[in-house]
Amino acid sequence: MDSTVAEQGVAWVSILMGSESDWPIMESTVEVLEKLGVKHEVMITSAHRTPTATVSHVKDAEQRGCAVFICAAGMAAHLAGAVAAHTVRPVIGVPIDAGPLVGFDALLSTVQMPGGVPVATVAVGKAGARNAAHLAAQILGLGDPEIEAALRADREANAQKVVQQNTGLAEKLARR
Amino acid sequence: MDSTVAEQGVAWVSILMGSESDWPIMESTVEVLEKLGVKHEVMITSAHRTPTATVSHVKDAEQRGCAVFICAAGMAAHLAGAVAAHTVRPVIGVPIDAGPLVGFDALLSTVQMPGGVPVATVAVGKAGARNAAHLAAQILGLGDPEIEAALRADREANAQKVVQQNTGLAEKLARR
Amino acid sequence: MDSTVAEQGVAWVSILMGSESDWPIMESTVEVLEKLGVKHEVMITSAHRTPTATVSHVKDAEQRGCAVFICAAGMAAHLAGAVAAHTVRPVIGVPIDAGPLVGFDALLSTVQMPGGVPVATVAVGKAGARNAAHLAAQILGLGDPEIEAALRADREANAQKVVQQNTGLAEKLARR
Amino acid sequence: MDSTVAEQGVAWVSILMGSESDWPIMESTVEVLEKLGVKHEVMITSAHRTPTATVSHVKDAEQRGCAVFICAAGMAAHLAGAVAAHTVRPVIGVPIDAGPLVGFDALLSTVQMPGGVPVATVAVGKAGARNAAHLAAQILGLGDPEIEAALRADREANAQKVVQQNTGLAEKLARR
Amino acid sequence: MDSTVAEQGVAWVSILMGSESDWPIMESTVEVLEKLGVKHEVMITSAHRTPTATVSHVKDAEQRGCAVFICAAGMAAHLAGAVAAHTVRPVIGVPIDAGPLVGFDALLSTVQMPGGVPVATVAVGKAGARNAAHLAAQILGLGDPEIEAALRADREANAQKVVQQNTGLAEKLARR
Amino acid sequence: MDSTVAEQGVAWVSILMGSESDWPIMESTVEVLEKLGVKHEVMITSAHRTPTATVSHVKDAEQRGCAVFICAAGMAAHLAGAVAAHTVRPVIGVPIDAGPLVGFDALLSTVQMPGGVPVATVAVGKAGARNAAHLAAQILGLGDPEIEAALRADREANAQKVVQQNTGLAEKLARR
Amino acid sequence: MDSTVAEQGVAWVSILMGSESDWPIMESTVEVLEKLGVKHEVMITSAHRTPTATVSHVKDAEQRGCAVFICAAGMAAHLAGAVAAHTVRPVIGVPIDAGPLVGFDALLSTVQMPGGVPVATVAVGKAGARNAAHLAAQILGLGDPEIEAALRADREANAQKVVQQNTGLAEKLARR
Amino acid sequence: MDSTVAEQGVAWVSILMGSESDWPIMESTVEVLEKLGVKHEVMITSAHRTPTATVSHVKDAEQRGCAVFICAAGMAAHLAGAVAAHTVRPVIGVPIDAGPLVGFDALLSTVQMPGGVPVATVAVGKAGARNAAHLAAQILGLGDPEIEAALRADREANAQKVVQQNTGLAEKLARR
Repeated sequence: MDSTVAEQGVAWVSILMGSESDWPIMESTVEVLEKLGVKHEVMITSAHRTPTATVSHVKDAEQRGCAVFICAAGMAAHLAGAVAAHTVRPVIGVPIDAGPLVGFDALLSTVQMPGGVPVATVAVGKAGARNAAHLAAQILGLGDPEIEAALRADREANAQKVVQQNTGLAEKLARR
Repeated sequence: MDSTVAEQGVAWVSILMGSESDWPIMESTVEVLEKLGVKHEVMITSAHRTPTATVSHVKDAEQRGCAVFICAAGMAAHLAGAVAAHTVRPVIGVPIDAGPLVGFDALLSTVQMPGGVPVATVAVGKAGARNAAHLAAQILGLGDPEIEAALRADREANAQKVVQQNTGLAEKLARR
Repeated sequence: MDSTVAEQGVAWVSILMGSESDWPIMESTVEVLEKLGVKHEVMITSAHRTPTATVSHVKDAEQRGCAVFICAAGMAAHLAGAVAAHTVRPVIGVPIDAGPLVGFDALLSTVQMPGGVPVATVAVGKAGARNAAHLAAQILGLGDPEIEAALRADREANAQKVVQQNTGLAEKLARR
Repeated sequence: MDSTVAEQGVAWVSILMGSESDWPIMESTVEVLEKLGVKHEVMITSAHRTPTATVSHVKDAEQRGCAVFICAAGMAAHLAGAVAAHTVRPVIGVPIDAGPLVGFDALLSTVQMPGGVPVATVAVGKAGARNAAHLAAQILGLGDPEIEAALRADREANAQKVVQQNTGLAEKLARR
Repeated sequence: MDSTVAEQGVAWVSILMGSESDWPIMESTVEVLEKLGVKHEVMITSAHRTPTATVSHVKDAEQRGCAVFICAAGMAAHLAGAVAAHTVRPVIGVPIDAGPLVGFDALLSTVQMPGGVPVATVAVGKAGARNAAHLAAQILGLGDPEIEAALRADREANAQKVVQQNTGLAEKLARR
Repeated sequence: MDSTVAEQGVAWVSILMGSESDWPIMESTVEVLEKLGVKHEVMITSAHRTPTATVSHVKDAEQRGCAVFICAAGMAAHLAGAVAAHTVRPVIGVPIDAGPLVGFDALLSTVQMPGGVPVATVAVGKAGARNAAHLAAQILGLGDPEIEAALRADREANAQKVVQQNTGLAEKLARR
Repeated sequence: MDSTVAEQGVAWVSILMGSESDWPIMESTVEVLEKLGVKHEVMITSAHRTPTATVSHVKDAEQRGCAVFICAAGMAAHLAGAVAAHTVRPVIGVPIDAGPLVGFDALLSTVQMPGGVPVATVAVGKAGARNAAHLAAQILGLGDPEIEAALRADREANAQKVVQQNTGLAEKLARR
Repeated sequence: MDSTVAEQGVAWVSILMGSESDWPIMESTVEVLEKLGVKHEVMITSAHRTPTATVSHVKDAEQRGCAVFICAAGMAAHLAGAVAAHTVRPVIGVPIDAGPLVGFDALLSTVQMPGGVPVATVAVGKAGARNAAHLAAQILGLGDPEIEAALRADREANAQKVVQQNTGLAEKLARR
């Protein structure tokens, strides 16, 4: 089940954001990728304000060994779909809860892709930003035992955190 | 690939559909434009399946005098936004009620465009298909007295139809 | 009652708001129109509290060369539809996110117009307020090369801003 | 244009529909009013296609003793609000489930009226059509003992019908 | 338990709230009724916590000349429906935006009454609280020329306020 | 008015429906209760059309050993809440998908009960009708080993059915 | 890992939370259970982060006399369903309003269980947290006269509180 | 219980369905995988009715070289999340539009996963069923040049189909 090893070294993830204002949410995508040891690049590009640059980036990134795209956008969130239209690499979409409609618009705009051009959509907002990184790592982990090991360790650490939280809760309850 | 050919030198409307299955709804756009005397072309092109052809068409159409784009798509309806990203001509979006979510997805994907790149969105489905034609005629009517006159006549005819419907209703009520 | 006076003989935009409380959002419509060099007037008028004044204004404005109406309202947002019923000029509707239902009410009340009387609806709230101005400029730009040039310059400036944002982001990432 | 003529000096109800297609649903409004002995007129008029006729009718009806308006419309249902803007008589709104959005649009467009101009909104579709008649009768019943008596009799009959339905159900269960 | 006492022989309005926490919103109902000269009583009673007291109040109030009920409740807002089940007087429902679902729950629980037992529903939250008072006054105004005159004066005052708001807006624009 | 008579001294379930039209869905509640060996009665009673009979039944049923109430209603579904207000027995609510809003109204009207008066809500429509019976059996099973055994057998049978379905699926796939 | 220890031989309630962040809301579940004299344990366990521990706990708790499970989770709230899949004890689900979608996601994920495996769902957020405790007490009260008495006393106290609130309201109104 | 047997040593896709009734929709997942040359197995297993078998299958499948899971379920769709909790392989979720709520429930139950355990969600219903296969192929295509080539060919074929559809449309328009 060995995956291709990207020429010029290692398969990596391209993180695209439709707007600078998405960064406070998407910073956690970077943090999780770093923790899991996944190479990545980050870029602001808009399906609507810089459509040509977006397409150029997709083609260039693919040539440079990009294996997975993570695209975050709010409102009529087209970025993930626009990227997916120009690549056969997996594209992960993060719907951002920007604007008054609390993210229902971005969710439906990202996930409801027509047959033939999928976007792997994760949760709206912060949870989705973290999960986009986990999903990208799961995909790269198919061909990279170190990433797979990092994922398994992260799961174990998460489970341990729950044990600790229960200890803390027991103390709170004892003080009641 | 264009389905009809507009006359030289006359402002015309480009109707784009994301899928052949949108035609039964969008046929009424063509009917209304014909009734109002507005030149037009019709084409199937997808923001996701034929993104490069879509962009080429927008640039070519603009050069050939296209003044207004009407774009219809369902689900994660990106077509209108994708066209709007490549032109400063007015782009009208018709959300199509395809798929299980009855058009809420297409509506939000079409209307919730970020600042700087508007899509003039009309109602979901058949009413929107007709209104896209009316709106395009209103825009062209600003510079074309014949179209403006056709719009005024259409309004008058619509009002007359209501008078006739009341006559029919009175007859029904009399028979009760 | 008009707040500004358009020049004689020049096509201009009439901005109508259903309530004084819409102004903090709609001020950006004025800002964008000013930046794009589009003449305009601003007025508060309500489809429900001042219906007769609304209709009088529409007829008067049309006679004085108004080419496009922009109508903003929240909740059961009828203003755009009420204006559209009395003119064949293009009417742009901005749904305002006032009240507890976060703008879903204003969006549906504005966009779901029946066949024959369209409202060109833009996004809910601030993004829509800006896009209403862009859309009006696109419509007037069909007959005014200066406005079209201003739109193209604005697009270019927007794209440049994304380039600068990427530089800023790169610095943030370098500091991590 | 009125479909029936109310008696002189008797408070009556004006039923307005935005479209001929609303009649199959609104026929039950007429049936309930007849059963409860409430005078009424029925008319098709549209807030958007015949706005001037709508306003004229409201003023004329008020002068001829109309006490309550019932307004039915689908989609961006503005009719009830448009009537309410021109009268201080109670206006009842019936949201019709026309178009793909199953009536959510008509409900929000009817009920979310801004402060000062209420519309008494009832349920979407058939249940609302019947309840509009009941509500109008309740209002007129405040000044008309015969209508009040008819309402009380109707309630009693409804309760009896439930008793009969239980008998039928018991028979079904016995046959199991 | 009633908070105010209505005069003998005068039609009055009973305002019921499902919870003390509804008062900050429903206070404006009282203010509008006072401004329009409509007699009223206010009471907290819950369809779920004090169901028997609710029914007793409805019967007692009807006997003491109560003509209209205004019922405010949030979440699964049953109060208006519970009152409507025990009277043939008009019942006005105000959906309160309490809890996380921003009032969609209260709106649907109030308006979607089955055939035979209507609730005259107004907008969610503050606008609805004011409009419940206006609607009650419209109903009582059918038999009380002073209330009708107060309503007409209020409409005129509202329209004047819009004129003043335009003056204020013009000054703001002049300062730009 | 009760449709069946429960045995003396045995805890039983009272199934209430707001309308005769709920029976085709609620028949499966009866079927599941029969399969699980749970005594029950079925009755049509409406929170709005027969509110007094509803309350009388609740009190009478409680005295006759009713342990759990199952209440089904559509639209502004108040029946479960109205019953819960008069008993401290567990009340299970089944939201019925009647009317145009596909059950969103009944779901929110049933589940969003204020603190102190719970309704145990199950899924909208047929799945909920079956699950109401399962939940009632789970509650009675706490004190009745036969019912608990029947539930465990049902779970096992369900799991076996999945095994059989896989065999059928394998055959279908083999025929491809 | 259990936070408290229930007495031998007494039916008790197991409260499970999907995340430590649910505690501020779920603390009121504990408070109500304490007030009603219902034994309970509290534990943090996640359907997704600690699935095996969750299943182990369910089996262990059942053996130790757990009669009812209360499960709280936000977003794609699977905890209640995951527990219900492994027990025939009643499972109560509390949808938590975490994340941007204000609890609609948790509500639908909790209540829409398929036939055969019910979750008794209560309101989203704080009201639901309190009602989960009331519902659990109602279930245990079927076999425990003390708990039933505590529930009846709580209802009476609630009703008295409404009487007091009316006194406070009357004072406020008198000061107007 | 597996319906097909994957070849030794080849990465393959496990398709899981929560119910036999999902097959008419999920059959297209199989068709697309076959067309793209991706090995796969199909199995019915339920997060709620057969939770232990589901977990066993995930572990067994992972050991036998399963690289990607595709999980389809309707209503409170927990299957994908339940699988994701037990593997670090990518899990794709297909929300099925079963039941009255047209798939909004399944969509939110599938996509709104908490941080750490992602589900790659695709569109509701048929489009999602096809796209789940495309996404799985994209993931496997990172390590398998034949699958990548098949994906590129499919894209090209899709674009060609649009060209043919335009020819058909032109003929229809010519016949008008």
